[in-house]
Amino acid sequence: MNIGIAGASGYTGLELIRILSFHDKVEINQISSRKFSGKKLKDFFPFISGKYGDLVFKEDLNLSDSDIFFLCLPHEPSVDYVFQVLENGKKVIDLSGAYRLKNKENYIEYYGFEHKYPNLLERSVYGLPEIFREEIKNAELIANPGCYPTATLIGLYPAVKEGIILENEAVVNALSGISGAGREPKQQFHFPEAYGDSYPYNPIKHRHIPEMEDILKAVGDKNFSVRFTPHILPVSRGMISTIHFKTNLSRDDLKEIYRDYYKDEPFVRFCENPPHIKHVIGSNFTDIFIDKDERTGYGIVVTAIDNLCKGASSQAVQNLNLIAGFDETYKLLDLSQSGIVFP
Amino acid sequence: MNIGIAGASGYTGLELIRILSFHDKVEINQISSRKFSGKKLKDFFPFISGKYGDLVFKEDLNLSDSDIFFLCLPHEPSVDYVFQVLENGKKVIDLSGAYRLKNKENYIEYYGFEHKYPNLLERSVYGLPEIFREEIKNAELIANPGCYPTATLIGLYPAVKEGIILENEAVVNALSGISGAGREPKQQFHFPEAYGDSYPYNPIKHRHIPEMEDILKAVGDKNFSVRFTPHILPVSRGMISTIHFKTNLSRDDLKEIYRDYYKDEPFVRFCENPPHIKHVIGSNFTDIFIDKDERTGYGIVVTAIDNLCKGASSQAVQNLNLIAGFDETYKLLDLSQSGIVFP
Amino acid sequence: MNIGIAGASGYTGLELIRILSFHDKVEINQISSRKFSGKKLKDFFPFISGKYGDLVFKEDLNLSDSDIFFLCLPHEPSVDYVFQVLENGKKVIDLSGAYRLKNKENYIEYYGFEHKYPNLLERSVYGLPEIFREEIKNAELIANPGCYPTATLIGLYPAVKEGIILENEAVVNALSGISGAGREPKQQFHFPEAYGDSYPYNPIKHRHIPEMEDILKAVGDKNFSVRFTPHILPVSRGMISTIHFKTNLSRDDLKEIYRDYYKDEPFVRFCENPPHIKHVIGSNFTDIFIDKDERTGYGIVVTAIDNLCKGASSQAVQNLNLIAGFDETYKLLDLSQSGIVFP
Amino acid sequence: MNIGIAGASGYTGLELIRILSFHDKVEINQISSRKFSGKKLKDFFPFISGKYGDLVFKEDLNLSDSDIFFLCLPHEPSVDYVFQVLENGKKVIDLSGAYRLKNKENYIEYYGFEHKYPNLLERSVYGLPEIFREEIKNAELIANPGCYPTATLIGLYPAVKEGIILENEAVVNALSGISGAGREPKQQFHFPEAYGDSYPYNPIKHRHIPEMEDILKAVGDKNFSVRFTPHILPVSRGMISTIHFKTNLSRDDLKEIYRDYYKDEPFVRFCENPPHIKHVIGSNFTDIFIDKDERTGYGIVVTAIDNLCKGASSQAVQNLNLIAGFDETYKLLDLSQSGIVFP
Repeated sequence: MNIGIAGASGYTGLELIRILSFHDKVEINQISSRKFSGKKLKDFFPFISGKYGDLVFKEDLNLSDSDIFFLCLPHEPSVDYVFQVLENGKKVIDLSGAYRLKNKENYIEYYGFEHKYPNLLERSVYGLPEIFREEIKNAELIANPGCYPTATLIGLYPAVKEGIILENEAVVNALSGISGAGREPKQQFHFPEAYGDSYPYNPIKHRHIPEMEDILKAVGDKNFSVRFTPHILPVSRGMISTIHFKTNLSRDDLKEIYRDYYKDEPFVRFCENPPHIKHVIGSNFTDIFIDKDERTGYGIVVTAIDNLCKGASSQAVQNLNLIAGFDETYKLLDLSQSGIVFP
Repeated sequence: MNIGIAGASGYTGLELIRILSFHDKVEINQISSRKFSGKKLKDFFPFISGKYGDLVFKEDLNLSDSDIFFLCLPHEPSVDYVFQVLENGKKVIDLSGAYRLKNKENYIEYYGFEHKYPNLLERSVYGLPEIFREEIKNAELIANPGCYPTATLIGLYPAVKEGIILENEAVVNALSGISGAGREPKQQFHFPEAYGDSYPYNPIKHRHIPEMEDILKAVGDKNFSVRFTPHILPVSRGMISTIHFKTNLSRDDLKEIYRDYYKDEPFVRFCENPPHIKHVIGSNFTDIFIDKDERTGYGIVVTAIDNLCKGASSQAVQNLNLIAGFDETYKLLDLSQSGIVFP
Repeated sequence: MNIGIAGASGYTGLELIRILSFHDKVEINQISSRKFSGKKLKDFFPFISGKYGDLVFKEDLNLSDSDIFFLCLPHEPSVDYVFQVLENGKKVIDLSGAYRLKNKENYIEYYGFEHKYPNLLERSVYGLPEIFREEIKNAELIANPGCYPTATLIGLYPAVKEGIILENEAVVNALSGISGAGREPKQQFHFPEAYGDSYPYNPIKHRHIPEMEDILKAVGDKNFSVRFTPHILPVSRGMISTIHFKTNLSRDDLKEIYRDYYKDEPFVRFCENPPHIKHVIGSNFTDIFIDKDERTGYGIVVTAIDNLCKGASSQAVQNLNLIAGFDETYKLLDLSQSGIVFP
Repeated sequence: MNIGIAGASGYTGLELIRILSFHDKVEINQISSRKFSGKKLKDFFPFISGKYGDLVFKEDLNLSDSDIFFLCLPHEPSVDYVFQVLENGKKVIDLSGAYRLKNKENYIEYYGFEHKYPNLLERSVYGLPEIFREEIKNAELIANPGCYPTATLIGLYPAVKEGIILENEAVVNALSGISGAGREPKQQFHFPEAYGDSYPYNPIKHRHIPEMEDILKAVGDKNFSVRFTPHILPVSRGMISTIHFKTNLSRDDLKEIYRDYYKDEPFVRFCENPPHIKHVIGSNFTDIFIDKDERTGYGIVVTAIDNLCKGASSQAVQNLNLIAGFDETYKLLDLSQSGIVFP
């Protein structure tokens, strides 16, 4: 099975190559990058695993030459690219936000462009296996989730599905390492300025909000409101989502619901204490903590993921395994356990 | 005016010495430290400003020899120490939590000891000038606030005072640099483990909760509930408090209330965007951002402080200026503006 | 083949467990730790790979129950421990410095104790495969090299072996991440103090000097002097060794010698530019750069390793592969390429 | 006395404004920045001290309107700018490298351009007060030293002046925080890539080499060769220069020479152990350590500075104080002692 990766020189693309270099059931046969077109992978990223070091970045992929395409492109160009891949009768896993929203109006409001293929939005399957495993298996177009939604939806899914959250709303504070902002240098992420700093950003209107609320509405079958505030963490990778909601459930019942929902999930690990980003770096794991503050009536859930792995590229490979009919954990479980967790 | 500092070898004590070495209206004439007793300050902390480098740490301070005492001790020993200073007819600014709570029962529940001098709790004035300036001026015993309460109370005060928060509760997520945990080495703060990591801790019952709720009750004249989750930031200094509450007020009205309350505060700076910890490091400033999410009905306030300065030692000097009758900003404004903010 | 690990709760011990959890030709059947005796591995280090999570730390290993023992103990206790393992007829890979020096007098001078088994020093083989591969294959006692010596000896070996260094001396400046100082919390490595700091230490007499000079004397067959200055890098892992020596060789000849010596080494990667620690983290690779400054007559060699991997635990597994007759790169090459290198 | 700052929006320019906002004997009356032309300082750098917050960046300075000009421009544009300032009869402190070298040929080789005003190179005084204090007092054109040369020259000056270094050469390994690379975002200094990384760069030919060698030749009255290797430190600020040279002097004599040379220097602090960058951040101090390795015959000197302060902007103010006839330490000593040194 041949794999093509468009936009392979960004962080998610490079991470995909790293992960797939261990996946012996598929072969990356073409990669593209406008910036590095004509260059060998190993000349610019010499530390990327030997297997694919001699691949040359193309200006554009040949859409007939691979069986499955991963798109690591900006949101807007992905809209067309997905259309073309599907026209060519191939499957596509899109790591951008181009096909994550159900309501085309939200593209104008949150992404700033009009979506050209609203019909395709309906064919798109949201690639979060912990919620949509069965749909993913038969999908042709997978919208690979954003990092914040992955961490938050895994944290909210059982409670929303069970309908045990009062007022159908949650307050979500999330922390993200800076690789989430991409590989393009920016002033605010220039090392001397970002080092030792931390701050919230986009405090009212973050582009991931409709993505989360769409899924929670589908899960709970009614509107659900997410009051979301992202924060910059001065680290390369890692993400924490700290979620508060009101509930009448007791601490024990709340914990039991979560344990029940996730008891067979290979990549969800329960923690006795709030999880650490350092324990999930390089892995496809979501570490999760659940508790209830009986004094204030709030349930609290905390999740930790690696924003570039479960929040992007290793989750894309988990989806690949599902659509290709491989074991869902193939090579991912090993890799998840080989990361450097300590110190 | 002579100053004595007990427990001067911890972070807050050393920071006090650094700040007071510029304050030419007072003189530190004695410092104590069990650990460094008999040693010269400059032999162990050679980078501390020249003026006090030759001071020798005493085993114990002489309570007759200074006019004002700063206590940088653990909570429980401070209970007695404050009593003794007052018995000697001197004034005391206590940087521990020993006299911050109004309800003595909370000492058992949140600090794990029974308070020996509950009567003194009533004489204690909470040293947050933005709320209690007038009371501070005449105080003999100042309970210098904790870092989390300082950041959070400045963020909640106008809204609680005005009574515009629905349900009398707020969800507070705070981030703290690791110096907040003190100078004693601990496994979880050993550099190789803390570097690149982040996580929430004490997710249900943090010792600063009753301190915040006591003050908010006094301010708003009714119970107020704080759903509080602290997080570790992998930096030395700095604190963010991100506060959400429900309100019917419009965005503009909310902002106006805050601007009105703090328009004359010398150490509160309004920000157009959420504040950065890097901009307040080394200073007595609180940078503050206020907004309303009309979509969800939540007000959002973010504050940033330096946990060792406005969250501890420079605030203690602000209180000193007030009780001594100096200009409240004396030497503090200069110092606050001389810190390295960039990069 | 059964493996026992003594002192398994320190950084090198935990790293060994992580690496060996992928090595299906051996089985860790016992681990010891005074501190965690009686506790399950996964209860304290829940992120360590599942395979060995249920292992319980013993107070002491049973020396009859494993075939090969890895010692991750302090230097002095290792002296006896090695003796006892050998008495039991088992093989031992010692990660301490207890058997690295050839001259017993240097133990008094550099380690502060008298060596009880000087005869064993002669039986010990220095576990640096790039120099002593053949001797390692038949060794019963392997002294696994220190991190600074590994980085420096790989950098000096070809030049010293070829005898092309004038005056038989080199100036070595090395930088080390803080995990090299071990897992025990210390004041100078308390996060708030180590963060953002850097400095040389032990500028005259570092314990790794005789280890390096012994090997270089053996390699070059005459005394060789290393003027060594280590520096603290404010990161968890990673090591740079920057080596200068005078030589009459041209740039091209110098490079050719190095390429020739290391052309078949599976874990030495040549770099066109000075190597980055971030490219070797989690791997057994040594990245190396060689050049000549024709203006001053100095050759310059820079090596980068992960101090806990090639500088300790993965090198120990490389040695295991050699003494056990496995492929030298077994599981190590995969693991070395799976690390997170970017960003 | 009016001050103009050209190129005021880079790190050295902003740092100059911060420092001068405390200097009440001069007034910044104009600042320029192509990038921020027409904008108020406080709108883009709100944390810069209030005094100058309302200054508006000009496209270009008026060369008649200030008495002394600080140039924080790239090297080549500075060549002309200095000429024009001098033509206008004003004094200039140039923070670029445009007038640091004595030999115009080195501009072609090390800076890549032909110097238009070689005659002016002779009028330029090298602004390192520890060596050229008297010349600085009467200078019209001060070439403010680079950060690496400042740290290295202060470390070598007494030994070179006394002629006690054998073979007239030194091996210098230096470490620099990333602010030394300027404020313009670059791929290699994008936070996710620079975080946790370290490496040497420009290992053979760094532009600061002729600057150091010119001065050392002038000091020692014969050619002196510096074998220089800079390294990137993953911190914002701070610089270490670790210097080795051969000498026949004893340890005690070596130390005595240094103590004697620097005994009256207000900004040189002697350290018993190798200095830490964290102790000089924000200050004009150079912390220095001197020792002799009797075993190998090498003297070792280590210096630590803040690359943006003593390595750039505070040294420029020290030079301002000298040419303006103020106390050399005016406001600088206070500021140097107010920095956050701990933690």
